[in-house]
Amino acid sequence: MPTESQSPYLPFGENKNASWYGKDILSVKQFNRADLEYIFGVAHEMRGMVERIGTFDLLKGKILANLFYEPSTRTSSSFTAAMERLGGSVIPINEVKYSSVTKGESLTDTVRTLECYADVIVLRHPETGSAAIAAKAAKKPVINAGDGIGEHPTQALLDTFTIMEELGRLDNLTVTMLGDLKYGRTVHSLARLLSLFKVKLNYVSPDILRMPKEVMDEVAAKGIPQAEYSTLEKVLPETDVLYVTRVQKERFEDPAEYEKVKGAYVIDPEIMKAAKQEMIVMHPLPRVTEISMDFDDDPRAAYFRQMEYGLYVRMALLAMVLGKA
Amino acid sequence: MPTESQSPYLPFGENKNASWYGKDILSVKQFNRADLEYIFGVAHEMRGMVERIGTFDLLKGKILANLFYEPSTRTSSSFTAAMERLGGSVIPINEVKYSSVTKGESLTDTVRTLECYADVIVLRHPETGSAAIAAKAAKKPVINAGDGIGEHPTQALLDTFTIMEELGRLDNLTVTMLGDLKYGRTVHSLARLLSLFKVKLNYVSPDILRMPKEVMDEVAAKGIPQAEYSTLEKVLPETDVLYVTRVQKERFEDPAEYEKVKGAYVIDPEIMKAAKQEMIVMHPLPRVTEISMDFDDDPRAAYFRQMEYGLYVRMALLAMVLGKA
Amino acid sequence: MPTESQSPYLPFGENKNASWYGKDILSVKQFNRADLEYIFGVAHEMRGMVERIGTFDLLKGKILANLFYEPSTRTSSSFTAAMERLGGSVIPINEVKYSSVTKGESLTDTVRTLECYADVIVLRHPETGSAAIAAKAAKKPVINAGDGIGEHPTQALLDTFTIMEELGRLDNLTVTMLGDLKYGRTVHSLARLLSLFKVKLNYVSPDILRMPKEVMDEVAAKGIPQAEYSTLEKVLPETDVLYVTRVQKERFEDPAEYEKVKGAYVIDPEIMKAAKQEMIVMHPLPRVTEISMDFDDDPRAAYFRQMEYGLYVRMALLAMVLGKA
Repeated sequence: MPTESQSPYLPFGENKNASWYGKDILSVKQFNRADLEYIFGVAHEMRGMVERIGTFDLLKGKILANLFYEPSTRTSSSFTAAMERLGGSVIPINEVKYSSVTKGESLTDTVRTLECYADVIVLRHPETGSAAIAAKAAKKPVINAGDGIGEHPTQALLDTFTIMEELGRLDNLTVTMLGDLKYGRTVHSLARLLSLFKVKLNYVSPDILRMPKEVMDEVAAKGIPQAEYSTLEKVLPETDVLYVTRVQKERFEDPAEYEKVKGAYVIDPEIMKAAKQEMIVMHPLPRVTEISMDFDDDPRAAYFRQMEYGLYVRMALLAMVLGKA
Repeated sequence: MPTESQSPYLPFGENKNASWYGKDILSVKQFNRADLEYIFGVAHEMRGMVERIGTFDLLKGKILANLFYEPSTRTSSSFTAAMERLGGSVIPINEVKYSSVTKGESLTDTVRTLECYADVIVLRHPETGSAAIAAKAAKKPVINAGDGIGEHPTQALLDTFTIMEELGRLDNLTVTMLGDLKYGRTVHSLARLLSLFKVKLNYVSPDILRMPKEVMDEVAAKGIPQAEYSTLEKVLPETDVLYVTRVQKERFEDPAEYEKVKGAYVIDPEIMKAAKQEMIVMHPLPRVTEISMDFDDDPRAAYFRQMEYGLYVRMALLAMVLGKA
Repeated sequence: MPTESQSPYLPFGENKNASWYGKDILSVKQFNRADLEYIFGVAHEMRGMVERIGTFDLLKGKILANLFYEPSTRTSSSFTAAMERLGGSVIPINEVKYSSVTKGESLTDTVRTLECYADVIVLRHPETGSAAIAAKAAKKPVINAGDGIGEHPTQALLDTFTIMEELGRLDNLTVTMLGDLKYGRTVHSLARLLSLFKVKLNYVSPDILRMPKEVMDEVAAKGIPQAEYSTLEKVLPETDVLYVTRVQKERFEDPAEYEKVKGAYVIDPEIMKAAKQEMIVMHPLPRVTEISMDFDDDPRAAYFRQMEYGLYVRMALLAMVLGKA
């Protein structure tokens, strides 16, 4: 660990919001800047511990119910690994469509049943608002692992933590979001979280896939400068963080329209010549063709490291809500 | 733990049937009253341990093969949690329909394979008698987690243990079973187990869903008083345990008939005004509308605590058959 | 353990190929005779440890991503048990068809994601060559648990280890393979591995299911005597190892042809009267009717013990590639 004066993180003792024991993690809206600094401080310590010793017994004896109503290999595996690296155990519940849910059991009854067995519940559900319903029913902490087009707060936290770890700061950065900015909950949550810091946000998308007005209004209310573009050219040279998302053909009524624009949203080594050396390219994964595999070995390609930071953030959150951070 | 004279349980040393090491748990018919007292004594200790320290290493190094040929989130999660709270590990086998079973492997070969890897096998299977077949094939202990319309002994044990823990006794109780008493294996097994104690049993059901004669004959042979009703009114005031099950529309040939009776089998706060304060309402879950969610906060609503008692009973059984109780 | 002079295994210190840390296990072709002797030495120690103490903490804190793109209960359970008996943890990923793979994520991206969470990856995939692709993408070790009609090296290793443990040697043996020798990758890999030792190989199959010429050529190049037969009669008395596989009806264009030959490839107690007392019958399982269940209690029936040897071999491989053997 760096000494205190070098550390980009607040010393632990100074945080006024440190009491996370028993809390739910439902939405990015519940966090202020001090919260993020605290979470990232714990996540950074988790990173150090994993790099030094791999696994440790901070949550030995604790049990996570990993309740996935829709499949998500990455998120599910990440929470499982986070719990196991902290010495805890997991009840994997992946095939909910076959389960008592299909017999008509309500989400609240399922959650109240699972909290009889487990110490914390991670919930992935296709319907917006499910996590809040589950949290209200449960006495034990619930972590939202994505509920429909609603929230996926741990994704937004890991995205922000990635920027912090890779670039050492969250202030004074130009973040460019590229691709489908209309339907991607990832970029909405990220824009909201980043608006707690001094950033400049660029949005590059096809006209029909622009960042929704409601998100832009929220961000503007925090005094964050935003600008919209249809191509990357102008903003790439100033970009510190390029956050890429996929433009799906199905979003276009006219396939010809898709064919016309798709090339503008693909990242490859040639295009990246115009970018700084000190910047990062991120992607929530899975990617298809929007980032060329030829770019994977470039040091600026941060998307697999991003997965790893997700592990540390989830370890931090589990430890915090179980009162062990 | 209460002192011996206060304890509702037999002191451990006095049980003549304590040698459960390596035994199979297949049917409620295998238990006598002393067995139940022993099991519940161990389960009560498990409850105390979980409440005090959450998890402990009684079965550290032991492996459970959790073999589910049909889905049951609650039962599967409960056994997983039971093993993990005892420090053991689990091999989850949930997607058996995709597995070698579909290539034609027989249940006996599957079980003989799994016992090469695991120390104990929990089996859920859609066909009656499967658990006995598996137990015959395996050298290691097999626990029946439900085989078709046959047995689900751990459910019956947890139901009985719930009554014991909640009311402090199993003798001198009036137990009223409500709803579909014809098709529910839960109430059949519970009636059989309770007939080992001094209880009075009331059966309240639509005429077409009455308790089967064979169960009533077995219970009568033990000298247990039984009475049948079509509405709850008369027996609710004397009831110590109200065991609710769902009346399914599909059981009725004439939908009008269902509509006429369904209201008589729904529990809500208004109806429960006629019941004692010192009594409990149970349900095997999942419920649909047969118990109003408005009743959930009533202290007599024991159905979620029932889930928790299931954890302790399964911990007890695992420890016992692995020689650690 | 036997003293050194009695041990059929090389003393550990003498192996020149002992550095397995971080290595991938992809193909039987990567092993020489010294490698096998080393692996079997470690597996034999694992057997002793499991028999003595069941489970031990050699891989405590290590995490296995058990990535199955197609179901295989036995192989998946075996790797899970192997990791758990060594004190490690498992991320089970069984329902890949629902996962991000279906959203178009490539195998390489999946593997690069999972190695952010886990220390070793076991991969089962329907396409030949997948394991090599995964191993190229991953920095962490990949173990091939079967890729299409390609390789299934841990099966071949456990088959060979079974012979070693049961008969005490791999030289000077007559091994007879029976059944479908054309399509079974098991017998192809086993023939290749055994050609590192001084064996005689007999192939008994219907004419249309003969051992492929390419495998026979490879084996012949090592100077191993081979002979083909259409019935077992002549070779059974001299056989030390009878390796049985299933003859599937669907392989025959003319069902009458299948009916004519099928009886020649079924093992039962009567037929086995012609075999030695000191020999073993093996089968990769699942079996259907090709070995009568009446034979299961014969001491020569080694097919369930074979499953158990698989556990020890997989424990050995996991420990080796994680640098702990």
